[in-house]
Amino acid sequence: MSGSVRIYEVSMRDGFQNEPVVIPTEQKLEHLQGLLRAGFRDIEVTAFVRPSWVPPLADAAQVVAALPDAPGVRFWALVPNAVGLNRALDSGLRHVATFLSASEAHNKKNVNRTVTESLSELQQVIAKARAEGVQVRAYLSTVFGCPFEGDVPIERSVVIARALLDAGAQEIALSDTIGSGNPVQVKHVVEAMLAAGIGVEQLAMHLHDTRGTALANAYSAWQEGVRTFDGCIAGIGGCPYAPGAAGNAASEDLVNMFELMGVDTGVNLGAACEVAETVTEVIGKPLPGRYHKYLLAARRRSANRSA
Amino acid sequence: MSGSVRIYEVSMRDGFQNEPVVIPTEQKLEHLQGLLRAGFRDIEVTAFVRPSWVPPLADAAQVVAALPDAPGVRFWALVPNAVGLNRALDSGLRHVATFLSASEAHNKKNVNRTVTESLSELQQVIAKARAEGVQVRAYLSTVFGCPFEGDVPIERSVVIARALLDAGAQEIALSDTIGSGNPVQVKHVVEAMLAAGIGVEQLAMHLHDTRGTALANAYSAWQEGVRTFDGCIAGIGGCPYAPGAAGNAASEDLVNMFELMGVDTGVNLGAACEVAETVTEVIGKPLPGRYHKYLLAARRRSANRSA
Repeated sequence: MSGSVRIYEVSMRDGFQNEPVVIPTEQKLEHLQGLLRAGFRDIEVTAFVRPSWVPPLADAAQVVAALPDAPGVRFWALVPNAVGLNRALDSGLRHVATFLSASEAHNKKNVNRTVTESLSELQQVIAKARAEGVQVRAYLSTVFGCPFEGDVPIERSVVIARALLDAGAQEIALSDTIGSGNPVQVKHVVEAMLAAGIGVEQLAMHLHDTRGTALANAYSAWQEGVRTFDGCIAGIGGCPYAPGAAGNAASEDLVNMFELMGVDTGVNLGAACEVAETVTEVIGKPLPGRYHKYLLAARRRSANRSA
Repeated sequence: MSGSVRIYEVSMRDGFQNEPVVIPTEQKLEHLQGLLRAGFRDIEVTAFVRPSWVPPLADAAQVVAALPDAPGVRFWALVPNAVGLNRALDSGLRHVATFLSASEAHNKKNVNRTVTESLSELQQVIAKARAEGVQVRAYLSTVFGCPFEGDVPIERSVVIARALLDAGAQEIALSDTIGSGNPVQVKHVVEAMLAAGIGVEQLAMHLHDTRGTALANAYSAWQEGVRTFDGCIAGIGGCPYAPGAAGNAASEDLVNMFELMGVDTGVNLGAACEVAETVTEVIGKPLPGRYHKYLLAARRRSANRSA
């Protein structure tokens, strides 16, 4: 094996929040058990956002209250602001993820604030979380393209990432929010971050597969030394700007690619695909991930042969 | 733009031959018109194989007889052997593609010959084609993995590729037949070919997307200098070893990735997606390609908004 990568699983948050069906808490917890059996060690389980904004995650407190004892596993929740952080702290969680956009128009649409206003608020949120001994990741959205502004200058993303780290964030998830990134651009963005003195171990890639480029982009970032990749079982979640298009990079597809490359993910591919198959039934439609469908097809063929 | 790539379109052969529906000749020719409108310049239009083996391509002679006049476009046909070559020559085609496998078990299953027997036969086929002034490409299957033998030593592929070029083939399409390749392996394979004195302009990549890795593998080959990539509109064709899994790299997804990278493909992405939408209707099921589905979803959203 040539090294390892860390797959940060986001299906329970970024996946479930963007699917039209509201999944009962009980089923979410079964899904979580599947993720744990598969070996995921970083799992974003929900978001402490206003329930009326994101109804599928309205059960955030119940999900966190029911989290199993899982040594070595980090359970994360998304918190948009101080109110969200307080709810997360009350719930007892020790890992939070916050977010803002690199582009003004997307940030305005998303949280109705300028980037500067968001940054100033997040600096306090991050400082408070760190003061409580809580780990903090920060998503930086629209780094690779904005649905409203198009191209986003790399220098903007570098400055904001730097500010988030200075505020105490321990990881920046460079996010291809609409899946418009390409591997050459990924290389340039990561290079620019490193040139600004950001450590490669402080970076994660959050890559949507809207146009099929997520794995190519992941490979490009891996070549630059990035070792943390967000994945979403079966690629659920879709794209809020193009409903019906593919979602995040499928966790099992990332696992397969890295393991084929000789890179350890710590995840059992077969067990991850079992979760993908179950969530396909729960959501009730074919999902974008490739590997779980390949496995199902290969199994059907083999069953037909032996019949 | 930083250079260009050539997209070699295989939907009419590798796509149609692996779909359960037999498409009428007339519809194939309409599909071809769409490919030409989109700007594809290398199009594999059919295969001169035994009709009983591949019923969807039984109309090979009719398709070739009806090819439009298209200056600057190369129309290719697959020929498995001397009989196939003669049929292609009789049809008037000036570009043929032949094939054999890097692994013994796959070659045996595919054409019921050892690799040495196939190579010896193809040497004559290639020599005759070249003597007639016909251009020859050769697919080398299972370079990145065999459905029966698993790993295939790179040295085998290098030796066979060398022999095919020595026989007069002008291009070797390194084929990931079952989509089990990974980008690090692609890098190693291309490096080994170049180290054996093969010119990078003699190489093409034929990458199936069974496990979602086709674009990552294409990017890796591009980094090594390869500039010809096989694509199949909408990713049709599937995988003969796992029916229901994804097919070839979708042409429009390749076009999108390269164009985003600033690499010219000569193909109009919107026009390619129109072909993808039409072929989706013809085949009658959702197809694996990502970009055409994204475009459709984005258009629907925009229509809903203006409604």
